[in-house]
Amino acid sequence: MTRQLSLNAFIHDTGHHEASWRHPDSGVDRVGDIAWYQDIARKAEAAKLDAVFLADGPVWWGTSHRPSNQFEPITLLTALATVTDRIGLIATASTSYYEPYNLARLFASLDRISGGRAGWNIVTTQGDEAAANFGQVVAASAETRYARAQEFLDAITRLWDSWEDDAVVADRESGVYVDVDKVHPIDFIGHFLKVKGPFNAPRTPQGRPVYVQAGSSNEGRNFAGRNAEAIFTAHQTLADAQAFYADIKAKARAFGRNPDHVKVLPGISPFIGDTPAQAKELYDEFNRLTVPAYGLQQLTAIAGVDLSDLDLDKPVPAGIFDGAGDVLNNNRSRLQVVANIVERDRPTLRELLHRLAGGRGHNVVHGTPVQIADTIQEWFEGGAADGFNVLPPLFPQHLEAFTSKVVPILQERGLFRTEYAGSTLREHYGLPRPDSQYATDLPVAAGQN
Amino acid sequence: MTRQLSLNAFIHDTGHHEASWRHPDSGVDRVGDIAWYQDIARKAEAAKLDAVFLADGPVWWGTSHRPSNQFEPITLLTALATVTDRIGLIATASTSYYEPYNLARLFASLDRISGGRAGWNIVTTQGDEAAANFGQVVAASAETRYARAQEFLDAITRLWDSWEDDAVVADRESGVYVDVDKVHPIDFIGHFLKVKGPFNAPRTPQGRPVYVQAGSSNEGRNFAGRNAEAIFTAHQTLADAQAFYADIKAKARAFGRNPDHVKVLPGISPFIGDTPAQAKELYDEFNRLTVPAYGLQQLTAIAGVDLSDLDLDKPVPAGIFDGAGDVLNNNRSRLQVVANIVERDRPTLRELLHRLAGGRGHNVVHGTPVQIADTIQEWFEGGAADGFNVLPPLFPQHLEAFTSKVVPILQERGLFRTEYAGSTLREHYGLPRPDSQYATDLPVAAGQN
Repeated sequence: MTRQLSLNAFIHDTGHHEASWRHPDSGVDRVGDIAWYQDIARKAEAAKLDAVFLADGPVWWGTSHRPSNQFEPITLLTALATVTDRIGLIATASTSYYEPYNLARLFASLDRISGGRAGWNIVTTQGDEAAANFGQVVAASAETRYARAQEFLDAITRLWDSWEDDAVVADRESGVYVDVDKVHPIDFIGHFLKVKGPFNAPRTPQGRPVYVQAGSSNEGRNFAGRNAEAIFTAHQTLADAQAFYADIKAKARAFGRNPDHVKVLPGISPFIGDTPAQAKELYDEFNRLTVPAYGLQQLTAIAGVDLSDLDLDKPVPAGIFDGAGDVLNNNRSRLQVVANIVERDRPTLRELLHRLAGGRGHNVVHGTPVQIADTIQEWFEGGAADGFNVLPPLFPQHLEAFTSKVVPILQERGLFRTEYAGSTLREHYGLPRPDSQYATDLPVAAGQN
Repeated sequence: MTRQLSLNAFIHDTGHHEASWRHPDSGVDRVGDIAWYQDIARKAEAAKLDAVFLADGPVWWGTSHRPSNQFEPITLLTALATVTDRIGLIATASTSYYEPYNLARLFASLDRISGGRAGWNIVTTQGDEAAANFGQVVAASAETRYARAQEFLDAITRLWDSWEDDAVVADRESGVYVDVDKVHPIDFIGHFLKVKGPFNAPRTPQGRPVYVQAGSSNEGRNFAGRNAEAIFTAHQTLADAQAFYADIKAKARAFGRNPDHVKVLPGISPFIGDTPAQAKELYDEFNRLTVPAYGLQQLTAIAGVDLSDLDLDKPVPAGIFDGAGDVLNNNRSRLQVVANIVERDRPTLRELLHRLAGGRGHNVVHGTPVQIADTIQEWFEGGAADGFNVLPPLFPQHLEAFTSKVVPILQERGLFRTEYAGSTLREHYGLPRPDSQYATDLPVAAGQN
């Protein structure tokens, strides 16, 4: 069979465009209604997408200009799990501000409730604002956060592995429910974390949730190459995406891993029209709804430089972002994306804000369904992507445009499934079900999935 | 209207009797299936019960003889929320091993997903085994745990209050989504916890989940009198329950609270038969399924004394539990229940284990539907209870026996609703919706639900 695309729907309140909530067709009055999200998940599943995905940060960003999340991601995905059967469910959660035992329980429960569809987007959470919600004055450095993240992942993996798959015997006759010899304390002792274990529930359908990672800093890439099974990333050009793709696959190989088990999934935010002009007009329509003050606030947060003196309608000075940002805490990879846009395209400040308004640095495209499908195929076959994280500018209309107009083209080209072959997220992504590291009697071969 | 009973269904895998999973009719093969719990919740809602309840501890108890929880409670209740409309959803969570910001998000999300049906059973989690899963060698003392619990509750309450009810304006025209003057940093600085805030989502349907408490130690009672809106408690006799009830209501008054807004709900685990003899035989049938080694392990954990030299069929020596237990960490109130049984009834060790097998110290009764209803009415009208936490020995059969045979008698007597009057757990319990402590322009009167 031809190599297959992986496609996720990245869910984000009214849509990924920052001004989507202001659009007359937006669902701004429904973003606190769980049925709104359940409907989106059902639509994504009807199109046979691999997963829905939720970003997250344990902090309020303090803006008046945009809806904030009304739901915590793991509970939200649990509510989606109960109205869907196949689609994967990926939640972001922070290794800096959770305890491994608590987070292990939440994801294990989601994996069990969903029948093996959970994924965990592992983030370390930059920014002092989040740190201050957890008793810290300033956030730890990226190096420290990633060091803790590795410990966290090692500990939580041991927890998820601590019950061998056949630990539950449930023998009514003898009164033995659990074979305690197959339940293992993990005795994890690290620099940041100590966790005795064992976990308090049997191993889940997938063994572990799919490990996803979304940071593209140096620390993030190394962490991804070592641990991640899927990587969400933001690139504006094919060349940038190709370089990233090659780097990640090389890193995975260097860690002794099978690079096919590390899916690289760039973001794409498509404005779809029947003609190129219609698509461009849709893009412009949304950008006209933006509030420049909000865009400037977001850009300042990424760059850490004061932009208030710049004229909205003059080109952004070259080099303005050179060396910008608090190198310990800011989003260096995202800043690099922004700096590259300025360097390459010399936009006015307003144009730059519009470029970022659609997907916060993700690749915003406009075109006909065939043009969008062509771009996807070009990146997929050009060593830039194993699939995409799709960021519809407006929910549910632009998700429906993608699933009803672009997905069928990809299916006709043999690049995307027309039916689910498996029932777990691991199966959708073509990832093996991992054995427990404590397993004492492994099957001789196969049977692991 | 006559004062009304509150009735909760306490959900616990195959049933509350420790040997229920061994019964030939048990659902032991389904306790990892979310549909099993959804079915139980639907049955409880069909009977118009106030809530379902889940106990919890972040630890594995290390026993081979009993199923462990397969789900984390908040995600489990989220899955129940999506298949029910009215019934309350109460999850246990620990103030010792969670961060307030994370737990605030989980419960707020559950409250929003369920349309205002969340309750939080606030526990401090005794025991070194749990502590060792969170980097601690030994658990803190009860005094320290409750001191942290009070800080935790103060901080999390501020988080839930930090968005005024009318903070979201969602004005498409002006581009203002949130009135930031109505979103308040909480700047909580305590001895154990520092939380800056504000919360990252709007205020939820109930404002805050219902605050439930279940510890009956001195610290627990003081905490409950000050904070709890519902109290789960274990008593074997009417007299003990009356004394507890009077004490809690007095404590609530001493804290300046309305004692009607503190519901005292003892546990009751009913074996129901068409005749007294049938009910007794059902009780005996379950006790014959117990594994004495398991019961001894549980009793030893409560008492902290070695019982292995005792004869199963000789009376437990009087005074054996005097001064027993690690006074810092063990379950003193539960131990007092056990000591009282020994003192009062002089059971053999086997009989004592059977008394505990049904409900771990909760009141296990057997009788006809009328007898069970009489007991409930006697406690309810005798100053011992505002309702009950019902612990069916076997799910779903014994829940169905209670709802189909006992509930109708209580309804005929005018003591229990035949339809839900409200849609939130606060409404079921007759509790007011709290104003935000940050509210700047409160309505003149009423309208607070």
